[in-house]
Amino acid sequence: MTVELICVGTELLLGNIVNTNAAFLAEKCAQLGLSMYYQSVVGDNPGRLEGLLREAVGRSDVVLLSGGLGPTEDDLTKETAAKVMGKPLVEDARARAEIERTLAKLGRDITENNWKQALVPEGCKVLYNPNGTAPGILMEEEGTCVILLPGPPNELIPMFEDQVAPYLEKKQPQAIRSKMVKLCGIGESAAETRILDLIDAQKNPTIAPYAKTGEVHLRITARAEEESRAYEMIRPVEEELRRRFGDLAYTDDPNVTLEQAVVEMLKAHGLTVATAESCTGGLLAGRLVNVPGVSDCFKEGYVTYSNQAKEKLLGVSAESLKEHGAVSPQVAEEMAVGGAKAAGADACVAVTGIAGPDGGTAEKPVGLVYLSCFCKGKVLTVKKQYTGNRGKVREYAVASALTLLRKAILEYGRRTDVEW
Amino acid sequence: MTVELICVGTELLLGNIVNTNAAFLAEKCAQLGLSMYYQSVVGDNPGRLEGLLREAVGRSDVVLLSGGLGPTEDDLTKETAAKVMGKPLVEDARARAEIERTLAKLGRDITENNWKQALVPEGCKVLYNPNGTAPGILMEEEGTCVILLPGPPNELIPMFEDQVAPYLEKKQPQAIRSKMVKLCGIGESAAETRILDLIDAQKNPTIAPYAKTGEVHLRITARAEEESRAYEMIRPVEEELRRRFGDLAYTDDPNVTLEQAVVEMLKAHGLTVATAESCTGGLLAGRLVNVPGVSDCFKEGYVTYSNQAKEKLLGVSAESLKEHGAVSPQVAEEMAVGGAKAAGADACVAVTGIAGPDGGTAEKPVGLVYLSCFCKGKVLTVKKQYTGNRGKVREYAVASALTLLRKAILEYGRRTDVEW
Repeated sequence: MTVELICVGTELLLGNIVNTNAAFLAEKCAQLGLSMYYQSVVGDNPGRLEGLLREAVGRSDVVLLSGGLGPTEDDLTKETAAKVMGKPLVEDARARAEIERTLAKLGRDITENNWKQALVPEGCKVLYNPNGTAPGILMEEEGTCVILLPGPPNELIPMFEDQVAPYLEKKQPQAIRSKMVKLCGIGESAAETRILDLIDAQKNPTIAPYAKTGEVHLRITARAEEESRAYEMIRPVEEELRRRFGDLAYTDDPNVTLEQAVVEMLKAHGLTVATAESCTGGLLAGRLVNVPGVSDCFKEGYVTYSNQAKEKLLGVSAESLKEHGAVSPQVAEEMAVGGAKAAGADACVAVTGIAGPDGGTAEKPVGLVYLSCFCKGKVLTVKKQYTGNRGKVREYAVASALTLLRKAILEYGRRTDVEW
Repeated sequence: MTVELICVGTELLLGNIVNTNAAFLAEKCAQLGLSMYYQSVVGDNPGRLEGLLREAVGRSDVVLLSGGLGPTEDDLTKETAAKVMGKPLVEDARARAEIERTLAKLGRDITENNWKQALVPEGCKVLYNPNGTAPGILMEEEGTCVILLPGPPNELIPMFEDQVAPYLEKKQPQAIRSKMVKLCGIGESAAETRILDLIDAQKNPTIAPYAKTGEVHLRITARAEEESRAYEMIRPVEEELRRRFGDLAYTDDPNVTLEQAVVEMLKAHGLTVATAESCTGGLLAGRLVNVPGVSDCFKEGYVTYSNQAKEKLLGVSAESLKEHGAVSPQVAEEMAVGGAKAAGADACVAVTGIAGPDGGTAEKPVGLVYLSCFCKGKVLTVKKQYTGNRGKVREYAVASALTLLRKAILEYGRRTDVEW
């Protein structure tokens, strides 16, 4: 079953707001196993909206529209959709009563144009809106389903989840399920090259690679009569991907982030961690703190952007700073060892680099970053050379730091000189 | 002149990522005075992309495409656009050399599919990409201009700004210029209410508000025959906005961020700063370190997510933690005062709050955050209640912390008990 999205709003065409509704609805539809081939944005212009909606109704089983259900004269989504579906607008008594109640609750005067929101296409299913005055609309006619949702996310999200998703799920003849194998420490091209034969041979399940900063996500999707059969079809593909990527695969749960996987590993091994950051300036600690409950294993984070702070908080030696410079494997290692000691943590991951735009030299160009991870007496240190602006270099360095920490924990788990 | 946007990427149709490119390009096009009537998203499917592109070329003067320029087999935007424009693909020597250089610098192996990125439609203008391996493409044929941009924002944004915007600007008969008054510490509704009369009366120049996390940006745009005349028309509007918003306006330079403005103020006053973060976990320090050269004024950052770390690194008293809890004005203030002392800094901004999803109570719900800023002997402490998920609460808290630090510096500048 195919679904398509039309978001109505001049503010989207002007770039005033980011279209988070589209991302939300797309993800939900994918989860429901609906195939989305098109998303469109159009302004509050009835002519262009009508053209787009007719096209959408002609090519997709379900058309989701968001926005343009307000009380003002330029809100014309409902009028246009009713026209396309050949339905007159009639007043819905319950919608009228709810609008009255909502506005009274908000202490707002009712103006004549508010009653426009109580009009609905004849014979439609009204999606009552406990979070605003615009009811949603669901119209179904000869196999085409047109669904109108209000634009504000705090109204759209609960309406979709409570009223639309259950409806769409019932319409699905096939179960479409997917799993996500997430990799870190490998680039998109290299990852794809390693599984080119699988991608070339794919039909059902399919494998789709997604490049993220410092990560590659491989989504495996299968369609089958039954949910259990879809997962059965996914299993051998997933096992093959895990076999080919080994330790590079950190999860098969689409909701688990790299920092979550790392925090889970720390907890599983009973390890505590600290961070010592120069160029990333707190972003690495910030990612670890993305994980609720990280306080069990995250001891302290040090942002030591200046040499002085590196000496004072981490005990980096003035000699190393002078002899090798702040961006050097020696200083990265001293930061990691010193950070673990200062925090009383089992492990510490340290980052020092030249994020740019200034500070680069021929020998140490912008984008050069050293990462070091101390873990229970052993140290891993790596050198990276990133491209991109200051923000990107720092973002990549954070991803590499998490990957290095993960590697150190994996090695720790295999060590025979420690007990855990 | 009309422009239309086609974003290519299955990850957008699956809702894996939010389409920030569309918002960025829409805003930039509006700024350039281009009228955008349609935005579309389509997957990496050559048939559907071709249909959409033919439609777009038929109705818009400029068609901007983003995404699908990667090295993998399912990246087909360039191939499809070349077909629609009737051009064969030929290898571009400079693109090939740059790909080789970029991959070598990254220390990544070159795989056969990388060379696909060096192919360009015959006779096009190649937009070389200093931030990645995919060059952009600009094709112009009989009044239709088709522009291909890489999908990753860190590649798309500089390519658009450096190479595409100047090109589009030249095509415009009128000079369209804008300035941006950026506000912090006021919400979108409140800001709009304060200038409703100006917005209602506007024709040329226009005022458009953009809501950002913890900020509102007001863009003033004027159209005139001459650039100088456009700026003349903007001046009185800008002055009126500055008069109405006073201290809330932190810059009129669209490229200056809040953290940059704050760092400039610190430097102007010769003040040094430290950060003490609980729920934001390093993100505040991370934003300060966004500013190149921040080491002149940024002493140290402490990530003290646990109570133990708050006591040890910041000297927060065990009594305060026990009596008032970690999320309290008392602890926020002790963090700020203690952080400044520990770092030997003139100022310290501290954040402690409940980012969720767990940890909330009736008395201290999720989203409650206390912020405190010490500056040269005086302390400002504020209470905030945010809505949204963990990420959103933390993002808002960082913006509020920068706003509070800015306020403390403004007050410092007006104090008579200190010399600077």
